[in-house]
Formats: sequence, C-alpha cells, structure tokens
Amino acid sequence: MDKQNKAKDELKFLGKKIVNKINKKENPFIEFRVRGLSNVSYDKTTKKLTLGSNLAKRHFFNVAHSKKFLQTVEVASICKNLLEEGKHASLRDVFYMAKRTIPNTKVNLVDEQKETDKSIEDLELITNLSREQMYVNANKMGSVVGKVKITDRGDKINWAKLGSGGWAIPSNVEDIKFDEVKAKYIIYMEKQAIWERLHEDKVWEKLNCILVTSQGQTTRGIRRLLQRLYEEHKLPIYILTDFDPWGFYIYSVIKYGSISLAHMSDKMAIPGVKFLGIMAEDIEKYGLNKHLIKLNDKDVSRLKQMVKYEWFEHNKEWQKQFKMMKQLGSKAEIQALSARGISFISEKYLPEKIKKKEFID
Amino acid sequence: MDKQNKAKDELKFLGKKIVNKINKKENPFIEFRVRGLSNVSYDKTTKKLTLGSNLAKRHFFNVAHSKKFLQTVEVASICKNLLEEGKHASLRDVFYMAKRTIPNTKVNLVDEQKETDKSIEDLELITNLSREQMYVNANKMGSVVGKVKITDRGDKINWAKLGSGGWAIPSNVEDIKFDEVKAKYIIYMEKQAIWERLHEDKVWEKLNCILVTSQGQTTRGIRRLLQRLYEEHKLPIYILTDFDPWGFYIYSVIKYGSISLAHMSDKMAIPGVKFLGIMAEDIEKYGLNKHLIKLNDKDVSRLKQMVKYEWFEHNKEWQKQFKMMKQLGSKAEIQALSARGISFISEKYLPEKIKKKEFID
Repeated sequence: MDKQNKAKDELKFLGKKIVNKINKKENPFIEFRVRGLSNVSYDKTTKKLTLGSNLAKRHFFNVAHSKKFLQTVEVASICKNLLEEGKHASLRDVFYMAKRTIPNTKVNLVDEQKETDKSIEDLELITNLSREQMYVNANKMGSVVGKVKITDRGDKINWAKLGSGGWAIPSNVEDIKFDEVKAKYIIYMEKQAIWERLHEDKVWEKLNCILVTSQGQTTRGIRRLLQRLYEEHKLPIYILTDFDPWGFYIYSVIKYGSISLAHMSDKMAIPGVKFLGIMAEDIEKYGLNKHLIKLNDKDVSRLKQMVKYEWFEHNKEWQKQFKMMKQLGSKAEIQALSARGISFISEKYLPEKIKKKEFID
Repeated sequence: MDKQNKAKDELKFLGKKIVNKINKKENPFIEFRVRGLSNVSYDKTTKKLTLGSNLAKRHFFNVAHSKKFLQTVEVASICKNLLEEGKHASLRDVFYMAKRTIPNTKVNLVDEQKETDKSIEDLELITNLSREQMYVNANKMGSVVGKVKITDRGDKINWAKLGSGGWAIPSNVEDIKFDEVKAKYIIYMEKQAIWERLHEDKVWEKLNCILVTSQGQTTRGIRRLLQRLYEEHKLPIYILTDFDPWGFYIYSVIKYGSISLAHMSDKMAIPGVKFLGIMAEDIEKYGLNKHLIKLNDKDVSRLKQMVKYEWFEHNKEWQKQFKMMKQLGSKAEIQALSARGISFISEKYLPEKIKKKEFID
C-alpha cells in the first residue's frame, strides 16, 4: 500500500508541475532523459547498461510535441487511476483506455499501441517508477519449482509442492513475499521442455536449486523475480540456453540489461549471473559434433553485432565463444544432449558443470 | 502404472508383428489410416471431425517406403524405452534420439524434426495411443485458477490458493487426479492478460468458475485438461476470444478437433463447448464500434475458408457471425472492453452474458 501511494504521489507531482505552469501562463513541458543508443553506455563499475544524462524536453505549445505531450499526460492519468483503483492493466488495456477522439476535433489521441507503449516508457524515465510500479503489467509466462515458500495475495505457496506444473510466474512479482528460501542457487533456462525434463528428474531436489523457465525471451516478470532472489537472498544464477547468438543474448539481457530498457537496468540487470551452457567446449566434450546446425545468415549477422558490444568487447571468454562459433559455422541446441540419453542433462551434464564450476562470467 | 504397461504392450505388439513377418521371410509392413483432408469428415452424430477408414500400408522392401518404415520403427522403439524408464520426452528430444547415421551408409535415419513428428502421428494411428500416452509431451504453457483440488506427482494442489500466478499447466495432464471440484463451469480465454485481469478481480470466486488460459493457440495439454473436466466432472466450458477469424478457429479446434489431428478427436474434441464472445452483437451493445480494426487480406481469406467448413456450413448462428464480420469489414479485440473501464469485463460483460446465457453453440 505504501508503494502504491508513493507511485501515485509521483504521478500527481507530475500533474501539479504542469498545472502550475498553466496557472502562471507559461508553456507547460515535461522533461526526461533521451532514450536510444546515442545516450546508452556500459558502466564498467556497476556492470550494467546505463542511460546517460542527455535531457529532452517536450512542450505543449509546440506543434511537433503537443500530441506526444497529451499522450504522456493521458497515460499518466490512466496509471494514477489504476493505482487508485488498485488494479493492474496490460499494455494493450492502456492503449484502449487512452484511445478516443479529442473533443471538437477529428484527431484521435492515439492510433496505435506503440504510442501508449512509448508514453509508458517516457513515464518510467520521468517518474523513476517501473511500469510494474505504475500497475501496468508485462506478459505473464513461465514456471518455477524449488524449495522456496512465498506469500502472494494472501496465499501461502510452496514451490516444491506443485506437481508437474509448478507455479505459474505472474507478470508482476513486486508484492511477493519470500517466507523461506532453502534452495542454494537458480538455474534459468529458455526452454519449457528442458524445465519439464529437469523437473521430472527432480534436479531441483537433488541439487537443491530453483528451476525457472520462460519460453524464448525472458519476460520482465521473470527478470524481476530472478533479481529479487539474487539481491534479497544472495542466490547465484546460472543461465542455460542453446549455443547460438540468440541464447547468448538472452544471457546478455539478464546480466547487463537491454538497450531499449537501459533506463531500467537498476531494476532489472543482474550483474552476477553466470553462463552455464551450452558453450563451445561442451560440443567436443559431450559429443555434440554430430548434432550441430549450420548458422544461417541471420545468425551470422547477429553474431557479428554481439562481438562488438562494449560489454563483450574486452571479455576474453566471450570473445573465445564467438570465435569458436564462427569457426564451427554452427550452432547447437540444448536438446542435442538428449542424443546421449534422455536424462543425460540431469544426471551428467548439469551436476558435472556445476561441481567443476564451468561457468562463463 | 497400468496405463504405462498398456502403452508399452501396444508398442511391443507392433514390434512382434514385424519380427513375425521377418521370421516367415515375408515383406514386413505397417498399416494405418490415411491422414489428411481427403480422409477427414465431420461426423454429425458425435459432432467431431473424424478420420475415415482409408488405409495406407508401408512396406520395408519398397524404395519409396523403407526410410519411413525405419523411422516409424525407430520412434516406436524410443517410445517403448521412454515408457520403460518412466520418463517423458519432448518432440525435439525424440528427434535427437532418433538422429544418427545408419551403419555402413552415409544416410541419416532422420534429418529434420518433422520426420520424427510424422512418425509419432503415424504411431498414434497405428497403436490408437495418444503421444502423451507414449510419454512424448507437447508444449507446456498456460495457467489455471478456480475452486479445484488435485493431486499430481504426490503433491496436493489447491488451484484457489496459488496467489497471482496460478498453477502452471503441464504439457501432460493424463495422470492428474481431481480430488474436489467445486467450480461450476470453465471460462477459457486465449489471452494471458485477460486471465490476469479476471483473476485480480476474483471473477473465479464471484462466479465460482475455473479460469484457464494459454497464449494464442491452445496446447494439447490444455485441451486435454478441459476435456477431462468436461467429461469427468460435467463442467460446461465457455470460450472467450477476440472477434476475428483466428479467435473463432480457436473455438472450432477446441470444439470439433483440428484437421491435422482428426485421428485424435476422440481424445481431444469437446462437442459441448460454447462460444461466449466477443460476438458481432457485442460490438453495438457494448459500444466497441470505435475500437474496430480493419480486416487485413489474411483475415479475409481465413474468413472465407471458415464460412465453408462443413461443421459451420449449416450453423445459422455462425453463418450470421461470419456475415456480420464481412459486412463490418472489421475485427475487435477482447481488450477493447477496457475502453469502458478496466474491470468492465469482470463486472458487467461476463456476468451479464453468462446470466442471460448469450452463447453460440
């Protein structure tokens, strides 16, 4: 409830500043930091992608600004209402709530969702609140299992007692209370099928870890869940993805933050995560050579981009991975380990890598 | 355990028939019903898409058949091993387990996953087992909440006590035991964001129903879960999708089965499900006119196909929906209801439609 009031106050403060300008008959404006690569840099100390201090102003009496100005104010007002009602909306909901014709004109306040999406990102910058704190939720997706007990919306939930399904991770994990965390570390994987494999083999019980998955891209809800467990309970996090540029980038986003959400790095990036696999050395070692898949053009160009990223540029281990992938001209999937037996990953690959601490930082 | 043995016996029986042929020095073959639209029809009595009785034979000594013959036998052997080990695999796993070079040749047994996928579908036809019964799992995705208690892998799980996340639906729900089902009906929706909205508004508690969601296409795990609750606990099921051809088809697949899986209709189709919305009449009634989205070319051609489907052809209500969509030249999203207020769907739309029984059959 405190957090809710704090967020509401931030939005009210924004409104008051605008009203004050109007009362003084001055041109109202909103000020926030410029987003985009030109204002993004890699901070070597915090090891996060961070947004620079270049500022942009948006004035009401400026033909190029006034529509965006209105949109931002409208979305701020929608968020304030959400906070007052104590209800969460999706990005799509916010779009429909903002979508209407400006009175006495034929102009719609917004025509496409990307306009309200942008306004919400702007509001994150202006207010320093995450969109989750403004009660706008990301996509819900993913499951978790492990020796952890939580309280959520008044329900006591034991992640270790949820059968084959596990707990469905909500889009917003800000209000979850961790009651007991017995697990010692987290393995995050990009594939649901691997999660089901490891869960059936009771890997979380044998290794006393938490297994987390989404499907493909890591949602904001999951990133925040990982970060909270990392920061509040000091749990190491290991990332398990395919050996391909997209898998590497999943790791990169979780660890350093993403370019488009650089302003959110403090709330989202987890500098301590480590990459567990699949790495180039595994291919020889675990006999995956026969199961390599040729890199396609998209893979190759993505790989070239990754090599040059500031945060990978001076990292010898990662440069070695990129180089070996280029030399092989191939990628490999986690599931290729199944060729060695369905539970090879649970009984051999994971325990061995974790015991020997074969991680990339 | 009984089901597991029954499935294993089916696969062993297949193997024995082949071995017998070999011992008699005859050409071994596998026989199964032809799949594809030519052998699919709509059964007016059961109201399901069903597979006809046209048979195909696949011989070992036939250049056009022998590779597929080998693939099918290999996949059958992989499934038998899974059943013996009591472990579940994903489609991708089965592919990697089958992928190897045939000794003394340069020929791979399989080169692409679609080959093993096809073999598994063939095996479903040959053995009359679903792939879940052969321990090959579909994708895991989706969440559920409501007054239901289950036992799964020895864990007692209460779907009503799982916080904001709900229970993550596993890819295989065959072994779930329903201990207590207090809910009176099910609302299935295609969108996670709507599920979170209804959950936050406690719709499942107020209306005493179960809320189920996937994201987009309904997974086999979810379809089986719906079917089991429908058949074993006589729960009515109402489908909530966008007003567009794709939403209608989600309903069609759940109700009648899909063309590609017509042989699975008995295990998957649920003839009693009803369509709750968004329907054409809602647009006027709930003021969604301003939030219509123009049909694109893909939508239009999909709509044309739907109109002609045998199972919709003589259904006046559905033909009316198709006609009105065509006249409007537009589709509408569920989230458009948010324009009327974030909880309009929970407080007005759903209770009203359900009370008045405004469904399409």
